[in-house]
Amino acid sequence: MKYIGIDLGGTAIKFGEITVDGEITARMEIDTPKDVIGAMAREIKSNYDLSEIAGIGMTVPGPVSDEGFLPICANVPSIRGIYPAKELSLALGSEGEHIKCSAGNDGKLAALGEYTFGAAKKYDSMIMATIGTAIGGGIILPGGRMVYGAHDVAAEISHIHVKDDEEVQCGCGGHGCLEQYASGTGLVREAKRAMDRSSAPSVLRDIERDKLAAKDVTNAAKAGDKLADEVVRYCFGFLGREFANLSVIVDPAVYIIGGGVSRAGQYLIDVIRESYEPNLHMLREPADIVLAELGNDAGMLGAARLVME
Amino acid sequence: MKYIGIDLGGTAIKFGEITVDGEITARMEIDTPKDVIGAMAREIKSNYDLSEIAGIGMTVPGPVSDEGFLPICANVPSIRGIYPAKELSLALGSEGEHIKCSAGNDGKLAALGEYTFGAAKKYDSMIMATIGTAIGGGIILPGGRMVYGAHDVAAEISHIHVKDDEEVQCGCGGHGCLEQYASGTGLVREAKRAMDRSSAPSVLRDIERDKLAAKDVTNAAKAGDKLADEVVRYCFGFLGREFANLSVIVDPAVYIIGGGVSRAGQYLIDVIRESYEPNLHMLREPADIVLAELGNDAGMLGAARLVME
Repeated sequence: MKYIGIDLGGTAIKFGEITVDGEITARMEIDTPKDVIGAMAREIKSNYDLSEIAGIGMTVPGPVSDEGFLPICANVPSIRGIYPAKELSLALGSEGEHIKCSAGNDGKLAALGEYTFGAAKKYDSMIMATIGTAIGGGIILPGGRMVYGAHDVAAEISHIHVKDDEEVQCGCGGHGCLEQYASGTGLVREAKRAMDRSSAPSVLRDIERDKLAAKDVTNAAKAGDKLADEVVRYCFGFLGREFANLSVIVDPAVYIIGGGVSRAGQYLIDVIRESYEPNLHMLREPADIVLAELGNDAGMLGAARLVME
Repeated sequence: MKYIGIDLGGTAIKFGEITVDGEITARMEIDTPKDVIGAMAREIKSNYDLSEIAGIGMTVPGPVSDEGFLPICANVPSIRGIYPAKELSLALGSEGEHIKCSAGNDGKLAALGEYTFGAAKKYDSMIMATIGTAIGGGIILPGGRMVYGAHDVAAEISHIHVKDDEEVQCGCGGHGCLEQYASGTGLVREAKRAMDRSSAPSVLRDIERDKLAAKDVTNAAKAGDKLADEVVRYCFGFLGREFANLSVIVDPAVYIIGGGVSRAGQYLIDVIRESYEPNLHMLREPADIVLAELGNDAGMLGAARLVME
């Protein structure tokens, strides 16, 4: 029997055929159409005999309720207000009746992927921060128990309030959320602010302002650019200090750092650790902070895990 | 069969005989001696035929590991560095071999008591803040799953960092911990600071400085004293804002407020709610914030619950 993991994004839908050991034995990819669920069903039917499939799990870029309802979904509006997994099950028809279909939030399923098959495999509890434009979060407790929350917003660590005097509004409506600093968007905004505030030299000044990207900032910092390094330390200092708080709330065995910005590698881990460790007073030993291992496949693998067992 | 819940404090050990419905059918109390475990065993043996007891649970004022080890215990030093439940089991001797003995952190067991028998009975997840000298914390997820943490410090919400420029050091070694404001100690310190800072009139000025107690501050605030009211709002504003953060981390269905300071009642709940709700941006509806119902019996009841099943 086969398990399919689907990673649904705003521009592409990626499919993976995944073994119980987390090996991806086949891949498919289609552009994200308007009729997302119909396209998923057609892609699977045209590549598989449904009788050989045991389960299909999918990530969705939004909060999924216990019952599988997706109330909001900014990136893929056509699946907002539906039960994506139930709809997929219906679209597969009577031949697919035996297939277990489930959907989960992309940040949470990336965490489940790393927990089961990746960087957190040897730990029994974890918090994952998937750092891209914003911060995806996932909290998994011993026994692989994912924390969903009573209102489906647990682990939305992007929106922890960390700064009181931020003038820019966060997408959530608040001011001073963690993602306004410790994210790709945050790095770029703070780099521009730092350049405006001083006349300190920086290689970032040679980049066209509108084209400045997070990886320019982290690359410059790693290459020794002082202004860039200060920006990264400022932005990710918030994350390290917040990890110290999370260690007296959830107290996970490990923090996993994934997402595009995590390509900055061990440098980023060291920056986070430098603001995490001095702020721990209750712990006899700090939790580990390590890089994710599964890259863009984490969500797909977590989605497949959701339907295994 | 009978269940015994024991609440171990620095000055007294309280025993309760507790039914599976959470009724306390008998009570005993002794002063806390040096030989805590021996005294517990003697008290139980002299009041019961051990064959009628199915389980004995006890609270301890410190962090208990998964294996039942208590590494630190400031209030009852004689049980530091032991396995209190295993020691009790040994002290009961061969006649007590069938008795299930367990120990748990007092804040966490108070939460379990309220979750099973008290204010959180109708909710499936909760965070409890037991507000006394410090803040005891407990986090319980759906299915009654207590969050202990990888280093036994989960739910130590007392030590969430909430303020950067605090000059007084917290007992944990940090500066600006939540308990330095939203606790009995915090209320008294901030009331003194407020009186020193201004010459605003207040009934608190009529109280001898060294005798000022938290309940003086909350009573004055409830009676309309402006300075006292501002102090309570300042101190518990930190708690309300931190609840907003906890709602995007753990997202519990309800927050339960217990402990001595919670005798301030609905006034205190309203103060917390006023800083909680405006800081929620991801939730469609706020979590409930309600007063604990079991008073000082919460820990004893939670301890008994630990050994039922």
